[in-house]
Amino acid sequence: MPDLKPADPDFEQRVRRVFATQGFMRTLGVELVEILPGRIAMRVPYSDGLNQHHGYFHGGVIGTLADNACGGAAGTLVAPDRLVLTVEYKLNFIAPADGAAIVARGRVVKSGRTLTICAADIFSEKDGAETLVATALATMMSLPGPGAS
Amino acid sequence: MPDLKPADPDFEQRVRRVFATQGFMRTLGVELVEILPGRIAMRVPYSDGLNQHHGYFHGGVIGTLADNACGGAAGTLVAPDRLVLTVEYKLNFIAPADGAAIVARGRVVKSGRTLTICAADIFSEKDGAETLVATALATMMSLPGPGAS
Amino acid sequence: MPDLKPADPDFEQRVRRVFATQGFMRTLGVELVEILPGRIAMRVPYSDGLNQHHGYFHGGVIGTLADNACGGAAGTLVAPDRLVLTVEYKLNFIAPADGAAIVARGRVVKSGRTLTICAADIFSEKDGAETLVATALATMMSLPGPGAS
Amino acid sequence: MPDLKPADPDFEQRVRRVFATQGFMRTLGVELVEILPGRIAMRVPYSDGLNQHHGYFHGGVIGTLADNACGGAAGTLVAPDRLVLTVEYKLNFIAPADGAAIVARGRVVKSGRTLTICAADIFSEKDGAETLVATALATMMSLPGPGAS
Repeated sequence: MPDLKPADPDFEQRVRRVFATQGFMRTLGVELVEILPGRIAMRVPYSDGLNQHHGYFHGGVIGTLADNACGGAAGTLVAPDRLVLTVEYKLNFIAPADGAAIVARGRVVKSGRTLTICAADIFSEKDGAETLVATALATMMSLPGPGAS
Repeated sequence: MPDLKPADPDFEQRVRRVFATQGFMRTLGVELVEILPGRIAMRVPYSDGLNQHHGYFHGGVIGTLADNACGGAAGTLVAPDRLVLTVEYKLNFIAPADGAAIVARGRVVKSGRTLTICAADIFSEKDGAETLVATALATMMSLPGPGAS
Repeated sequence: MPDLKPADPDFEQRVRRVFATQGFMRTLGVELVEILPGRIAMRVPYSDGLNQHHGYFHGGVIGTLADNACGGAAGTLVAPDRLVLTVEYKLNFIAPADGAAIVARGRVVKSGRTLTICAADIFSEKDGAETLVATALATMMSLPGPGAS
Repeated sequence: MPDLKPADPDFEQRVRRVFATQGFMRTLGVELVEILPGRIAMRVPYSDGLNQHHGYFHGGVIGTLADNACGGAAGTLVAPDRLVLTVEYKLNFIAPADGAAIVARGRVVKSGRTLTICAADIFSEKDGAETLVATALATMMSLPGPGAS
Protein backbone atom coordinates (compact mmCIF):
# COMPACT_ATOMS: atom_id res chain seq x y z
CA MET A 1 0.00 0.00 0.00
CA PRO A 2 1.25 3.50 -0.78
CA ASP A 3 2.36 5.93 1.92
CA LEU A 4 -0.66 8.10 2.49
CA LYS A 5 0.72 10.43 5.15
CA PRO A 6 0.03 14.04 4.17
CA ALA A 7 2.98 16.42 4.60
CA ASP A 8 0.48 19.22 5.25
CA PRO A 9 -2.18 18.84 7.98
CA ASP A 10 -4.32 21.43 6.19
CA PHE A 11 -4.26 19.48 2.93
CA GLU A 12 -8.01 19.57 2.48
CA GLN A 13 -8.30 23.35 2.60
CA ARG A 14 -5.28 23.72 0.33
CA VAL A 15 -6.67 21.34 -2.28
CA ARG A 16 -10.07 23.05 -2.12
CA ARG A 17 -8.43 26.44 -2.53
CA VAL A 18 -6.47 25.39 -5.61
CA PHE A 19 -9.55 23.77 -7.05
CA ALA A 20 -11.61 26.93 -6.46
CA THR A 21 -9.20 29.04 -8.49
CA GLN A 22 -9.49 26.88 -11.62
CA GLY A 23 -11.90 28.62 -13.94
CA PHE A 24 -12.39 25.44 -15.94
CA MET A 25 -13.77 23.59 -12.91
CA ARG A 26 -16.48 26.24 -12.61
CA THR A 27 -17.21 26.06 -16.32
CA LEU A 28 -17.76 22.32 -16.00
CA GLY A 29 -19.67 22.59 -12.72
CA VAL A 30 -17.36 20.16 -10.91
CA GLU A 31 -17.70 19.72 -7.16
CA LEU A 32 -15.28 18.04 -4.77
CA VAL A 33 -17.14 15.31 -2.93
CA GLU A 34 -14.35 13.64 -0.94
CA ILE A 35 -10.80 14.58 0.05
CA LEU A 36 -8.77 12.04 2.01
CA PRO A 37 -5.01 11.45 2.22
CA GLY A 38 -4.04 10.15 -1.19
CA ARG A 39 -7.64 10.02 -2.38
CA ILE A 40 -10.11 12.40 -3.93
CA ALA A 41 -13.51 12.24 -5.57
CA MET A 42 -15.14 14.85 -7.76
CA ARG A 43 -18.50 14.92 -9.47
CA VAL A 44 -20.10 16.79 -12.35
CA PRO A 45 -23.81 16.77 -13.21
CA TYR A 46 -24.85 16.37 -16.81
CA SER A 47 -25.68 19.38 -18.95
CA ASP A 48 -26.02 19.78 -22.71
CA GLY A 49 -22.94 21.99 -22.74
CA LEU A 50 -20.84 18.99 -21.71
CA ASN A 51 -22.04 16.48 -24.25
CA GLN A 52 -20.80 14.90 -27.47
CA HIS A 53 -22.77 14.05 -30.57
CA HIS A 54 -24.71 11.14 -29.05
CA GLY A 55 -25.80 13.13 -26.01
CA TYR A 56 -23.37 11.44 -23.61
CA PHE A 57 -20.74 13.20 -21.54
CA HIS A 58 -17.95 14.31 -23.87
CA GLY A 59 -14.69 12.39 -23.51
CA GLY A 60 -12.98 15.68 -22.81
CA VAL A 61 -15.00 16.10 -19.62
CA ILE A 62 -14.02 12.59 -18.58
CA GLY A 63 -10.37 13.24 -19.39
CA THR A 64 -10.44 16.49 -17.46
CA LEU A 65 -11.85 14.77 -14.39
CA ALA A 66 -9.33 11.93 -14.67
CA ASP A 67 -6.45 14.37 -14.85
CA ASN A 68 -7.74 16.55 -12.01
CA ALA A 69 -8.59 13.58 -9.80
CA CYS A 70 -5.02 12.35 -10.15
CA GLY A 71 -3.67 15.83 -9.46
CA GLY A 72 -5.93 16.26 -6.48
CA ALA A 73 -5.00 12.88 -5.01
CA ALA A 74 -1.30 13.72 -5.33
CA GLY A 75 -1.96 17.21 -3.98
CA THR A 76 -3.29 15.84 -0.69
CA LEU A 77 0.15 14.42 0.17
CA VAL A 78 2.59 17.19 -0.75
CA ALA A 79 4.04 19.86 1.52
CA PRO A 80 2.23 23.24 1.56
CA ASP A 81 5.08 24.93 -0.32
CA ARG A 82 4.96 22.53 -3.26
CA LEU A 83 2.71 22.40 -6.27
CA VAL A 84 1.65 19.43 -8.37
CA LEU A 85 1.79 19.27 -12.16
CA THR A 86 0.57 16.56 -14.47
CA VAL A 87 3.47 15.05 -16.40
CA GLU A 88 1.28 12.71 -18.43
CA TYR A 89 -1.73 10.46 -18.24
CA LYS A 90 -3.24 7.62 -20.19
CA LEU A 91 -6.98 7.13 -20.30
CA ASN A 92 -9.01 4.15 -21.47
CA PHE A 93 -12.65 4.68 -22.29
CA ILE A 94 -14.68 1.67 -21.23
CA ALA A 95 -18.37 2.46 -21.67
CA PRO A 96 -20.54 5.34 -22.93
CA ALA A 97 -20.92 7.96 -20.23
CA ASP A 98 -24.64 8.41 -20.21
CA GLY A 99 -26.28 9.28 -16.93
CA ALA A 100 -27.20 12.14 -14.64
CA ALA A 101 -23.63 12.73 -13.47
CA ILE A 102 -20.11 11.37 -13.62
CA VAL A 103 -17.86 10.82 -10.62
CA ALA A 104 -14.07 10.55 -10.77
CA ARG A 105 -12.20 8.81 -7.99
CA GLY A 106 -8.44 9.43 -7.93
CA ARG A 107 -5.88 7.66 -5.76
CA VAL A 108 -2.15 7.68 -5.22
CA VAL A 109 -0.51 4.43 -6.32
CA LYS A 110 3.02 5.41 -5.30
CA SER A 111 4.17 8.61 -3.69
CA GLY A 112 7.77 9.52 -4.47
CA ARG A 113 9.99 12.48 -3.73
CA THR A 114 9.56 14.09 -7.14
CA LEU A 115 7.09 11.90 -8.99
CA THR A 116 3.80 10.45 -7.83
CA ILE A 117 1.97 7.73 -9.74
CA CYS A 118 -1.82 8.00 -9.55
CA ALA A 119 -4.81 6.17 -10.93
CA ALA A 120 -8.37 7.31 -11.46
CA ASP A 121 -11.62 5.54 -12.21
CA ILE A 122 -14.53 7.46 -13.67
CA PHE A 123 -18.10 6.28 -13.18
CA SER A 124 -21.42 7.39 -14.58
CA GLU A 125 -24.39 7.62 -12.24
CA LYS A 126 -27.61 6.32 -13.69
CA ASP A 127 -30.72 5.19 -11.87
CA GLY A 128 -28.85 4.99 -8.59
CA ALA A 129 -26.08 2.74 -9.87
CA GLU A 130 -22.50 3.50 -10.84
CA THR A 131 -20.96 2.18 -14.08
CA LEU A 132 -17.23 2.33 -14.80
CA VAL A 133 -16.84 4.44 -17.94
CA ALA A 134 -13.10 5.11 -17.99
CA THR A 135 -9.87 4.37 -16.16
CA ALA A 136 -6.61 6.32 -16.12
CA LEU A 137 -3.00 5.94 -15.04
CA ALA A 138 -1.00 9.13 -14.53
CA THR A 139 2.37 10.56 -13.53
CA MET A 140 2.35 13.70 -11.41
CA MET A 141 5.35 15.85 -10.45
CA SER A 142 5.75 18.06 -7.42
CA LEU A 143 7.79 21.22 -7.61
CA PRO A 144 8.66 24.01 -5.17
CA GLY A 145 6.03 26.73 -5.41
CA PRO A 146 3.21 28.15 -3.36
CA GLY A 147 -0.28 26.83 -3.92
CA ALA A 148 -0.74 23.31 -5.16
CA SER A 149 -2.63 20.44 -6.73
CA MET B 1 3.32 6.95 -44.73
CA PRO B 2 -0.25 6.12 -43.71
CA ASP B 3 -3.02 5.55 -46.23
CA LEU B 4 -4.82 8.87 -46.37
CA LYS B 5 -7.52 8.04 -48.85
CA PRO B 6 -10.91 9.08 -47.47
CA ALA B 7 -13.68 6.49 -47.92
CA ASP B 8 -16.19 9.35 -48.06
CA PRO B 9 -15.71 12.20 -50.56
CA ASP B 10 -17.83 14.43 -48.34
CA PHE B 11 -15.63 13.82 -45.32
CA GLU B 12 -15.19 17.49 -44.53
CA GLN B 13 -18.90 18.24 -44.24
CA ARG B 14 -19.45 15.07 -42.22
CA VAL B 15 -16.68 15.91 -39.76
CA ARG B 16 -17.96 19.47 -39.44
CA ARG B 17 -21.50 18.20 -38.83
CA VAL B 18 -20.42 15.83 -36.06
CA PHE B 19 -18.30 18.54 -34.52
CA ALA B 20 -21.19 21.01 -34.59
CA THR B 21 -23.42 18.68 -32.59
CA GLN B 22 -20.96 18.40 -29.69
CA GLY B 23 -22.16 20.73 -26.97
CA PHE B 24 -18.79 20.64 -25.29
CA MET B 25 -17.05 22.09 -28.35
CA ARG B 26 -19.36 25.11 -28.15
CA THR B 27 -18.74 25.44 -24.42
CA LEU B 28 -14.99 25.56 -25.07
CA GLY B 29 -15.33 27.80 -28.13
CA VAL B 30 -13.40 25.43 -30.39
CA GLU B 31 -13.25 26.12 -34.11
CA LEU B 32 -12.12 23.77 -36.86
CA VAL B 33 -9.33 25.46 -38.79
CA GLU B 34 -8.23 22.69 -41.17
CA ILE B 35 -9.68 19.41 -42.38
CA LEU B 36 -7.63 17.29 -44.75
CA PRO B 37 -7.55 13.55 -45.37
CA GLY B 38 -6.07 12.08 -42.20
CA ARG B 39 -5.37 15.50 -40.72
CA ILE B 40 -7.27 18.05 -38.74
CA ALA B 41 -6.52 21.24 -36.81
CA MET B 42 -8.71 22.94 -34.23
CA ARG B 43 -8.20 26.10 -32.23
CA VAL B 44 -9.58 27.59 -29.06
CA PRO B 45 -8.99 31.16 -27.87
CA TYR B 46 -8.14 31.77 -24.24
CA SER B 47 -10.82 32.74 -21.73
CA ASP B 48 -10.83 32.73 -17.94
CA GLY B 49 -13.40 29.98 -17.97
CA LEU B 50 -10.82 27.64 -19.49
CA ASN B 51 -7.94 28.26 -17.11
CA GLN B 52 -6.25 26.51 -14.21
CA HIS B 53 -4.88 28.06 -11.03
CA HIS B 54 -1.90 29.78 -12.67
CA GLY B 55 -4.00 31.39 -15.38
CA TYR B 56 -2.86 29.04 -18.16
CA PHE B 57 -5.13 26.85 -20.24
CA HIS B 58 -6.37 24.00 -18.07
CA GLY B 59 -4.92 20.60 -18.90
CA GLY B 60 -8.45 19.38 -19.43
CA VAL B 61 -8.90 21.73 -22.37
CA ILE B 62 -5.64 20.45 -23.85
CA GLY B 63 -6.68 16.85 -23.29
CA THR B 64 -10.06 17.49 -24.87
CA LEU B 65 -8.46 18.99 -27.97
CA ALA B 66 -5.94 16.14 -28.19
CA ASP B 67 -8.71 13.57 -28.02
CA ASN B 68 -10.95 15.41 -30.50
CA ALA B 69 -8.11 16.10 -32.91
CA CYS B 70 -7.32 12.39 -33.02
CA GLY B 71 -10.98 11.55 -33.47
CA GLY B 72 -11.39 14.14 -36.17
CA ALA B 73 -8.31 12.96 -38.06
CA ALA B 74 -9.58 9.37 -37.98
CA GLY B 75 -13.05 10.58 -38.91
CA THR B 76 -11.83 12.06 -42.19
CA LEU B 77 -10.96 8.59 -43.48
CA VAL B 78 -13.93 6.41 -42.52
CA ALA B 79 -16.94 5.54 -44.62
CA PRO B 80 -20.06 7.70 -44.19
CA ASP B 81 -21.90 4.92 -42.39
CA ARG B 82 -19.27 4.46 -39.70
CA LEU B 83 -18.58 6.37 -36.51
CA VAL B 84 -15.33 6.84 -34.66
CA LEU B 85 -14.86 6.29 -30.94
CA THR B 86 -11.80 6.95 -28.82
CA VAL B 87 -10.51 3.71 -27.34
CA GLU B 88 -7.75 5.37 -25.37
CA TYR B 89 -5.17 8.11 -25.51
CA LYS B 90 -1.98 9.07 -23.73
CA LEU B 91 -1.00 12.68 -23.32
CA ASN B 92 2.32 14.21 -22.28
CA PHE B 93 2.33 17.79 -21.11
CA ILE B 94 5.47 19.54 -22.30
CA ALA B 95 5.21 23.24 -21.42
CA PRO B 96 2.74 25.59 -19.69
CA ALA B 97 -0.05 26.54 -22.07
CA ASP B 98 -0.01 30.30 -21.71
CA GLY B 99 -0.96 32.33 -24.73
CA ALA B 100 -3.87 33.80 -26.61
CA ALA B 101 -5.01 30.47 -28.02
CA ILE B 102 -4.12 26.83 -28.35
CA VAL B 103 -4.13 24.85 -31.57
CA ALA B 104 -4.32 21.06 -31.78
CA ARG B 105 -3.09 19.28 -34.89
CA GLY B 106 -4.18 15.65 -35.22
CA ARG B 107 -2.97 13.14 -37.78
CA VAL B 108 -3.51 9.51 -38.64
CA VAL B 109 -0.41 7.39 -38.03
CA LYS B 110 -1.93 4.13 -39.25
CA SER B 111 -5.39 3.54 -40.61
CA GLY B 112 -6.69 0.01 -40.07
CA ARG B 113 -9.94 -1.76 -40.70
CA THR B 114 -11.17 -1.48 -37.12
CA LEU B 115 -8.53 0.51 -35.30
CA THR B 116 -6.78 3.70 -36.30
CA ILE B 117 -3.69 4.99 -34.53
CA CYS B 118 -3.49 8.77 -34.34
CA ALA B 119 -1.17 11.37 -32.88
CA ALA B 120 -1.79 14.97 -31.93
CA ASP B 121 0.44 17.89 -31.08
CA ILE B 122 -0.96 20.85 -29.17
CA PHE B 123 0.62 24.28 -29.47
CA SER B 124 0.07 27.56 -27.68
CA GLU B 125 0.02 30.74 -29.71
CA LYS B 126 1.85 33.64 -28.11
CA ASP B 127 3.21 36.77 -29.76
CA GLY B 128 2.88 35.22 -33.20
CA ALA B 129 4.85 32.06 -32.39
CA GLU B 130 3.72 28.52 -31.67
CA THR B 131 5.11 26.53 -28.75
CA LEU B 132 4.56 22.79 -28.36
CA VAL B 133 2.71 22.33 -25.07
CA ALA B 134 1.58 18.72 -25.28
CA THR B 135 1.72 15.62 -27.45
CA ALA B 136 -0.62 12.66 -27.58
CA LEU B 137 -0.81 9.15 -29.01
CA ALA B 138 -4.26 7.60 -29.37
CA THR B 139 -6.20 4.56 -30.52
CA MET B 140 -9.49 5.16 -32.30
CA MET B 141 -12.08 2.56 -33.30
CA SER B 142 -14.59 2.73 -36.10
CA LEU B 143 -17.96 1.07 -35.78
CA PRO B 144 -21.03 0.78 -37.98
CA GLY B 145 -23.37 3.66 -37.25
CA PRO B 146 -24.64 6.81 -38.87
CA GLY B 147 -22.82 10.04 -38.20
CA ALA B 148 -19.19 10.00 -37.21
CA SER B 149 -16.34 11.84 -35.63
CA MET C 1 -16.70 -6.00 -11.40
CA PRO C 2 -15.79 -7.31 -14.85
CA ASP C 3 -17.47 -10.32 -16.41
CA LEU C 4 -15.07 -13.16 -15.72
CA LYS C 5 -16.93 -16.00 -17.37
CA PRO C 6 -14.61 -17.87 -19.73
CA ALA C 7 -16.09 -18.69 -23.14
CA ASP C 8 -13.86 -21.78 -23.26
CA PRO C 9 -13.95 -24.31 -20.41
CA ASP C 10 -10.46 -25.46 -21.39
CA PHE C 11 -9.05 -21.94 -21.13
CA GLU C 12 -6.16 -22.97 -18.90
CA GLN C 13 -4.76 -25.55 -21.29
CA ARG C 14 -5.23 -23.21 -24.24
CA VAL C 15 -3.39 -20.35 -22.52
CA ARG C 16 -0.60 -22.71 -21.45
CA ARG C 17 -0.31 -24.03 -25.00
CA VAL C 18 0.01 -20.57 -26.54
CA PHE C 19 2.49 -19.58 -23.87
CA ALA C 20 4.58 -22.70 -24.53
CA THR C 21 4.97 -21.82 -28.21
CA GLN C 22 6.47 -18.39 -27.52
CA GLY C 23 10.21 -18.70 -27.90
CA PHE C 24 10.75 -15.47 -26.04
CA MET C 25 9.11 -16.85 -22.88
CA ARG C 26 11.65 -19.68 -22.87
CA THR C 27 14.51 -17.24 -23.46
CA LEU C 28 13.40 -15.25 -20.41
CA GLY C 29 12.66 -18.35 -18.32
CA VAL C 30 9.09 -17.27 -17.56
CA GLU C 31 6.75 -19.71 -15.83
CA LEU C 32 2.99 -19.46 -15.47
CA VAL C 33 2.14 -19.61 -11.78
CA GLU C 34 -1.62 -18.96 -11.81
CA ILE C 35 -4.36 -19.05 -14.42
CA LEU C 36 -7.88 -18.10 -13.37
CA PRO C 37 -10.80 -16.60 -15.31
CA GLY C 38 -9.69 -13.06 -16.12
CA ARG C 39 -6.50 -13.39 -14.09
CA ILE C 40 -3.01 -14.69 -14.63
CA ALA C 41 0.33 -14.61 -12.86
CA MET C 42 3.74 -15.31 -14.31
CA ARG C 43 7.18 -15.32 -12.73
CA VAL C 44 10.75 -15.07 -13.92
CA PRO C 45 13.83 -15.71 -11.76
CA TYR C 46 16.75 -13.32 -11.95
CA SER C 47 19.72 -14.04 -14.21
CA ASP C 48 22.51 -11.80 -15.46
CA GLY C 49 21.19 -12.16 -18.98
CA LEU C 50 18.06 -10.24 -17.94
CA ASN C 51 19.68 -7.28 -16.25
CA GLN C 52 20.38 -3.64 -16.98
CA HIS C 53 23.47 -1.62 -16.08
CA HIS C 54 22.80 -1.50 -12.33
CA GLY C 55 22.26 -5.22 -12.05
CA TYR C 56 18.46 -4.98 -11.70
CA PHE C 57 15.93 -6.63 -13.96
CA HIS C 58 15.91 -4.77 -17.26
CA GLY C 59 12.82 -2.69 -17.93
CA GLY C 60 12.30 -4.70 -21.09
CA VAL C 61 11.74 -7.86 -19.05
CA ILE C 62 9.22 -6.00 -16.93
CA GLY C 63 7.48 -4.62 -20.00
CA THR C 64 7.38 -8.04 -21.59
CA LEU C 65 5.75 -9.54 -18.51
CA ALA C 66 3.27 -6.67 -18.25
CA ASP C 67 2.26 -7.14 -21.88
CA ASN C 68 2.03 -10.93 -21.63
CA ALA C 69 0.17 -10.85 -18.32
CA CYS C 70 -2.47 -8.61 -19.90
CA GLY C 71 -2.64 -10.85 -22.95
CA GLY C 72 -2.89 -13.96 -20.82
CA ALA C 73 -5.62 -12.50 -18.62
CA ALA C 74 -7.65 -11.55 -21.70
CA GLY C 75 -6.91 -14.94 -23.25
CA THR C 76 -8.60 -16.79 -20.39
CA LEU C 77 -11.96 -15.30 -21.37
CA VAL C 78 -12.10 -15.62 -25.15
CA ALA C 79 -13.66 -18.40 -27.20
CA PRO C 80 -11.33 -21.20 -28.37
CA ASP C 81 -11.47 -20.00 -31.97
CA ARG C 82 -10.28 -16.49 -31.18
CA LEU C 83 -6.82 -15.07 -30.60
CA VAL C 84 -5.75 -12.09 -28.54
CA LEU C 85 -3.45 -9.34 -29.73
CA THR C 86 -2.05 -6.42 -27.78
CA VAL C 87 -3.30 -3.14 -29.25
CA GLU C 88 -1.28 -0.99 -26.87
CA TYR C 89 -0.11 -0.72 -23.30
CA LYS C 90 1.22 1.94 -20.98
CA LEU C 91 3.68 1.06 -18.25
CA ASN C 92 4.82 3.08 -15.26
CA PHE C 93 8.01 2.07 -13.52
CA ILE C 94 7.68 2.56 -9.79
CA ALA C 95 10.76 1.11 -8.08
CA PRO C 96 14.03 -0.59 -9.08
CA ALA C 97 13.42 -4.27 -9.79
CA ASP C 98 16.11 -5.82 -7.68
CA GLY C 99 15.40 -9.22 -6.17
CA ALA C 100 15.50 -12.92 -6.85
CA ALA C 101 12.51 -12.89 -9.17
CA ILE C 102 9.74 -10.74 -10.57
CA VAL C 103 6.08 -11.70 -10.68
CA ALA C 104 3.51 -10.13 -12.98
CA ARG C 105 -0.17 -10.30 -12.10
CA GLY C 106 -2.55 -9.44 -14.93
CA ARG C 107 -6.30 -8.95 -14.67
CA VAL C 108 -9.19 -8.06 -16.93
CA VAL C 109 -10.71 -4.68 -16.09
CA LYS C 110 -13.43 -4.82 -18.74
CA SER C 111 -14.17 -7.57 -21.19
CA GLY C 112 -15.81 -6.41 -24.40
CA ARG C 113 -16.80 -8.04 -27.64
CA THR C 114 -13.76 -6.87 -29.56
CA LEU C 115 -11.62 -5.02 -27.04
CA THR C 116 -10.62 -6.01 -23.54
CA ILE C 117 -9.06 -3.59 -21.08
CA CYS C 118 -6.51 -5.17 -18.76
CA ALA C 119 -4.19 -4.06 -15.99
CA ALA C 120 -1.03 -5.65 -14.65
CA ASP C 121 1.07 -5.10 -11.56
CA ILE C 122 4.66 -6.29 -11.48
CA PHE C 123 6.36 -7.10 -8.19
CA SER C 124 9.91 -7.99 -7.27
CA GLU C 125 10.50 -10.74 -4.76
CA LYS C 126 13.20 -10.01 -2.21
CA ASP C 127 13.76 -11.63 1.16
CA GLY C 128 10.29 -13.13 1.14
CA ALA C 129 8.47 -9.85 0.48
CA GLU C 130 6.91 -8.44 -2.70
CA THR C 131 7.51 -4.85 -3.80
CA LEU C 132 5.48 -3.17 -6.54
CA VAL C 133 7.96 -2.21 -9.26
CA ALA C 134 5.67 -1.34 -12.16
CA THR C 135 2.03 -1.02 -13.16
CA ALA C 136 0.45 -1.19 -16.59
CA LEU C 137 -2.84 -0.46 -18.33
CA ALA C 138 -3.46 -2.17 -21.66
CA THR C 139 -5.91 -2.63 -24.52
CA MET C 140 -6.21 -6.11 -26.00
CA MET C 141 -8.14 -7.12 -29.11
CA SER C 142 -9.63 -10.48 -29.94
CA LEU C 143 -9.84 -11.69 -33.51
CA PRO C 144 -11.06 -14.83 -35.20
CA GLY C 145 -8.19 -17.29 -35.47
CA PRO C 146 -7.13 -20.58 -34.02
CA GLY C 147 -4.90 -20.56 -30.95
CA ALA C 148 -4.83 -17.58 -28.65
CA SER C 149 -3.10 -15.76 -25.87
CA MET D 1 12.41 21.60 -32.61
CA PRO D 2 13.92 20.23 -29.41
CA ASP D 3 17.27 21.37 -28.04
CA LEU D 4 19.69 18.72 -29.21
CA LYS D 5 22.89 20.05 -27.68
CA PRO D 6 24.65 17.27 -25.76
CA ALA D 7 25.94 18.29 -22.31
CA ASP D 8 28.70 15.72 -22.71
CA PRO D 9 30.97 15.78 -25.80
CA ASP D 10 31.73 12.10 -25.24
CA PHE D 11 28.06 11.15 -25.28
CA GLU D 12 28.51 8.42 -27.85
CA GLN D 13 31.10 6.49 -25.87
CA ARG D 14 29.09 6.92 -22.68
CA VAL D 15 25.89 5.63 -24.26
CA ARG D 16 27.76 2.70 -25.81
CA ARG D 17 29.35 1.88 -22.45
CA VAL D 18 26.02 1.84 -20.61
CA PHE D 19 24.49 -0.22 -23.38
CA ALA D 20 27.36 -2.72 -23.25
CA THR D 21 26.78 -3.39 -19.54
CA GLN D 22 23.14 -4.38 -20.01
CA GLY D 23 23.00 -8.16 -20.00
CA PHE D 24 19.56 -8.12 -21.56
CA MET D 25 20.85 -6.34 -24.67
CA ARG D 26 23.30 -9.19 -25.20
CA THR D 27 20.58 -11.76 -24.63
CA LEU D 28 18.48 -10.11 -27.35
CA GLY D 29 21.44 -9.55 -29.67
CA VAL D 30 20.77 -5.82 -30.00
CA GLU D 31 23.33 -3.63 -31.75
CA LEU D 32 23.55 0.15 -31.74
CA VAL D 33 23.46 1.36 -35.32
CA GLU D 34 23.33 5.14 -34.90
CA ILE D 35 24.00 7.58 -32.06
CA LEU D 36 23.42 11.26 -32.69
CA PRO D 37 22.48 14.12 -30.36
CA GLY D 38 18.92 13.35 -29.27
CA ARG D 39 18.64 10.38 -31.63
CA ILE D 40 19.53 6.74 -31.52
CA ALA D 41 18.86 3.63 -33.59
CA MET D 42 19.24 0.03 -32.52
CA ARG D 43 18.66 -3.20 -34.40
CA VAL D 44 18.05 -6.82 -33.53
CA PRO D 45 18.11 -9.72 -36.01
CA TYR D 46 15.37 -12.33 -35.81
CA SER D 47 15.90 -15.58 -33.95
CA ASP D 48 13.45 -18.20 -32.72
CA GLY D 49 14.29 -17.29 -29.14
CA LEU D 50 12.71 -13.87 -29.70
CA ASN D 51 9.43 -14.94 -31.22
CA GLN D 52 5.82 -15.27 -30.18
CA HIS D 53 3.33 -17.97 -31.12
CA HIS D 54 2.94 -16.92 -34.77
CA GLY D 55 6.66 -16.80 -35.39
CA TYR D 56 6.88 -13.00 -35.39
CA PHE D 57 9.06 -10.92 -33.09
CA HIS D 58 7.53 -11.03 -29.62
CA GLY D 59 5.94 -7.79 -28.45
CA GLY D 60 8.28 -7.86 -25.49
CA VAL D 61 11.28 -7.47 -27.78
CA ILE D 62 9.58 -4.54 -29.47
CA GLY D 63 8.71 -2.97 -26.11
CA THR D 64 12.27 -3.43 -24.90
CA LEU D 65 13.67 -1.70 -27.96
CA ALA D 66 11.15 1.12 -27.70
CA ASP D 67 12.06 1.71 -24.05
CA ASN D 68 15.81 1.50 -24.67
CA ALA D 69 15.68 3.67 -27.77
CA CYS D 70 13.95 6.39 -25.75
CA GLY D 71 16.45 5.99 -22.92
CA GLY D 72 19.36 6.07 -25.32
CA ALA D 73 18.08 9.17 -27.12
CA ALA D 74 17.69 10.97 -23.78
CA GLY D 75 21.07 9.66 -22.66
CA THR D 76 22.85 11.40 -25.53
CA LEU D 77 21.91 14.80 -24.11
CA VAL D 78 22.57 14.52 -20.38
CA ALA D 79 25.72 15.51 -18.50
CA PRO D 80 28.28 12.76 -17.83
CA ASP D 81 27.44 12.67 -14.13
CA ARG D 82 23.74 12.01 -14.67
CA LEU D 83 21.86 8.83 -15.41
CA VAL D 84 18.58 8.35 -17.26
CA LEU D 85 15.67 6.28 -15.99
CA THR D 86 12.43 5.44 -17.73
CA VAL D 87 9.49 6.91 -15.86
CA GLU D 88 6.88 5.41 -18.17
CA TYR D 89 6.15 4.66 -21.76
CA LYS D 90 3.14 3.89 -23.93
CA LEU D 91 3.44 1.64 -26.92
CA ASN D 92 1.03 1.07 -29.80
CA PHE D 93 1.45 -2.03 -31.91
CA ILE D 94 0.67 -1.25 -35.53
CA ALA D 95 1.56 -4.29 -37.64
CA PRO D 96 2.91 -7.82 -37.12
CA ALA D 97 6.68 -7.75 -36.74
CA ASP D 98 7.68 -10.38 -39.23
CA GLY D 99 10.97 -9.91 -41.00
CA ALA D 100 14.68 -10.53 -40.75
CA ALA D 101 15.25 -7.82 -38.15
CA ILE D 102 13.61 -4.96 -36.31
CA VAL D 103 15.04 -1.47 -35.96
CA ALA D 104 14.03 1.02 -33.27
CA ARG D 105 14.61 4.72 -33.84
CA GLY D 106 14.33 6.88 -30.73
CA ARG D 107 14.29 10.67 -30.60
CA VAL D 108 14.00 13.40 -28.01
CA VAL D 109 10.78 15.39 -28.36
CA LYS D 110 11.51 17.80 -25.51
CA SER D 111 14.55 17.94 -23.30
CA GLY D 112 13.88 19.38 -19.85
CA ARG D 113 15.92 19.82 -16.71
CA THR D 114 14.53 16.76 -14.97
CA LEU D 115 12.21 15.13 -17.47
CA THR D 116 12.76 14.39 -21.14
CA ILE D 117 9.93 13.38 -23.46
CA CYS D 118 10.95 10.91 -26.15
CA ALA D 119 9.32 9.03 -28.99
CA ALA D 120 10.35 5.86 -30.76
CA ASP D 121 9.26 4.16 -33.95
CA ILE D 122 9.97 0.50 -34.49
CA PHE D 123 10.25 -0.96 -37.97
CA SER D 124 10.57 -4.47 -39.30
CA GLU D 125 12.98 -5.12 -42.13
CA LYS D 126 11.70 -7.44 -44.80
CA ASP D 127 12.88 -7.83 -48.36
CA GLY D 128 14.83 -4.60 -48.16
CA ALA D 129 11.90 -2.48 -47.03
CA GLU D 130 10.99 -1.09 -43.62
CA THR D 131 7.47 -1.35 -42.20
CA LEU D 132 6.32 0.57 -39.13
CA VAL D 133 5.30 -2.05 -36.56
CA ALA D 134 5.00 0.02 -33.38
CA THR D 135 5.26 3.54 -32.04
CA ALA D 136 5.94 4.74 -28.51
CA LEU D 137 5.80 7.90 -26.43
CA ALA D 138 7.86 7.96 -23.24
CA THR D 139 8.90 10.04 -20.25
CA MET D 140 12.50 9.76 -19.10
CA MET D 141 14.03 11.23 -15.94
CA SER D 142 17.63 12.22 -15.34
CA LEU D 143 19.15 11.90 -11.91
CA PRO D 144 22.58 12.55 -10.43
CA GLY D 145 24.69 9.40 -10.67
CA PRO D 146 27.68 8.08 -12.55
CA GLY D 147 27.14 6.17 -15.77
CA ALA D 148 24.03 6.86 -17.76
CA SER D 149 21.28 6.13 -20.22
